[in-house]
Amino acid sequence: MPRLSYLDIAAILRDEIERGVYRHGDTLPPEPVLAERFETTRATINNALRVLRGEGCIATHRGRGTTVTALTRRIRRSAMTRYRPEALQTSTGPFDYEVRQLGMSPRSEVTVSRVVPPAEIAEILKLDEGEQAVQRARRMFADDTPVMIASSYIPLSIAADTVLEQEQQGPGGMIRRLAELGHAQVHMDESVTVRPPNDDEADFLRMSSDQRVYVILHIGRTAEGTAVEAAQQIMPTHYWQLDYSWDVEPA
Amino acid sequence: MPRLSYLDIAAILRDEIERGVYRHGDTLPPEPVLAERFETTRATINNALRVLRGEGCIATHRGRGTTVTALTRRIRRSAMTRYRPEALQTSTGPFDYEVRQLGMSPRSEVTVSRVVPPAEIAEILKLDEGEQAVQRARRMFADDTPVMIASSYIPLSIAADTVLEQEQQGPGGMIRRLAELGHAQVHMDESVTVRPPNDDEADFLRMSSDQRVYVILHIGRTAEGTAVEAAQQIMPTHYWQLDYSWDVEPA
Repeated sequence: MPRLSYLDIAAILRDEIERGVYRHGDTLPPEPVLAERFETTRATINNALRVLRGEGCIATHRGRGTTVTALTRRIRRSAMTRYRPEALQTSTGPFDYEVRQLGMSPRSEVTVSRVVPPAEIAEILKLDEGEQAVQRARRMFADDTPVMIASSYIPLSIAADTVLEQEQQGPGGMIRRLAELGHAQVHMDESVTVRPPNDDEADFLRMSSDQRVYVILHIGRTAEGTAVEAAQQIMPTHYWQLDYSWDVEPA
Repeated sequence: MPRLSYLDIAAILRDEIERGVYRHGDTLPPEPVLAERFETTRATINNALRVLRGEGCIATHRGRGTTVTALTRRIRRSAMTRYRPEALQTSTGPFDYEVRQLGMSPRSEVTVSRVVPPAEIAEILKLDEGEQAVQRARRMFADDTPVMIASSYIPLSIAADTVLEQEQQGPGGMIRRLAELGHAQVHMDESVTVRPPNDDEADFLRMSSDQRVYVILHIGRTAEGTAVEAAQQIMPTHYWQLDYSWDVEPA
C-alpha cells in the first residue's frame, strides 16, 4: 500500500470527527499511536494535525494533548436579521437564537462598567480625550464552548444612570432601550477583519496562536447619523459563518 | 538591559515595516543577524517572525528568505457600494476602484470557459447533475501583488453564445450584461467564511499554510428570487477589510 500523505490522513481524521467517531471535547490518540495506526512518521502526523488545527477541528494544549473542538456546524451570524425589530422582540436576543439553531444552549456572562474606551471606539462615538463610556462586556458560550467576546460601548452622556447600566436589559435588549431613551438606531455599519487572537482572547476562546479571530466592528447610528453604540465582536473564524443580504437597484 | 520578548521584537519590526524602513517586497535580514541585533536567541526571533507572518506582514519562502508582504493599508471591499448601478457605470468595475483607493494599480487576468461547477454552486444555480455553467475566472493583482481569486458562474442556459462568454464585458460588467439579457439582479446574498489556503491558492497568492483566506460566496438574484450568478471570491485575510452597511427599522 502506498504511504498516505498528510492531507490524506487529515481527511480521514476530519471525516471521523464529522461522523462522531471522535466527538467535541474528546482527546485524540497521541502522535506515536496515530503514526503507528497510519504506518507513517510522526512528522507526517504532525503535519496532518496542523491542517486540522488550522481549520479549527482540533486544538493542542501543552500537557493536555489534542482535543476535538469542532462544532457540528458553524454558527451562522445573519447580520441583517439579528438587528431587526422582530428579532429583538424575544427576551433572549440574536446570539441565543443563532446558537439554538445548532441545537446547542447559549449562555452569556455580562459585565457592565464605565471605562475610557479604545481610541478607535472613542473616535467613532466622538468622545473627548479621556471621556468615559458605558462598556457592556459579554463572554458567550454555546453549550460549554466559548465562542464569542463582545464589548458594546455607549457614551456616558446617553447611558449614565439609565437601564443601560444594568446587567439585564429586558426584551429587545440594548437597542430597544436606546430607542426608548430617544436614540433609535436606523443605520448599521460593520467592518470585518481577521487576525490572530491576543493572549487573553486565546485563553478564553481556547485557541492556539496559529488560529484566527474575526474582529467585527459594529456601529449603530440614529437618523441624524450619530453613532450611539459601537461594539467590537471577537469570534474564532472556525466557529462562525457571517451572512449578509441586501437589495440593489437593477443595473 | 532586560532581554526583549518575542512580542517586543515583533512590535519593533512591525513598526519598522509601517515606517518604511523595510518596504513591500524587501527581504528581512536572516534570523542569525536579527538574533544578533536584538541580542537574543534564534528561537525568540523565530517566534517574533511567526507573529508577523500570522498578521500577514511578512512571508517566508524556502530558499528565498523572509520578505515583507504588508500593503500600506488593507483594501476595503464595500459590499453595498460595489454592486450599485453607479459603481458599475465605470468601465473598470469595483475591484479596480478599491485598489486605486490605496494608490495602487489594479490588474486582472480573465479566463472564460464552460465547466461543471462545484456542487455548492450547482445547487445554488439549480443545475442538473453534470450540467455546465459559464465560468469567468479572474486572478487579480494590486501593483504586482496577487490579492484575489474570483470565479463567477452563470447557467449555460443564460450565458451560452452571449457577450457573457467574451473576456471583456464592457461598461457595467457582467451585472449590466445580465440585466440587458433580461436577468436583472435586485437581491444579493453573501456568506463569509475563513480557512487556510489550498495549495493552488497559496501558490498564486504567495501565502504560507498558517495564513488564512476569506471565502466569500456571493449570489445575485432576480426579482423572482432566481440565482442567476454565483461567485466565489478568495482573498488573503491580511490584505482585506470587508465593509457592510444597511438601514434598519427603528426598534
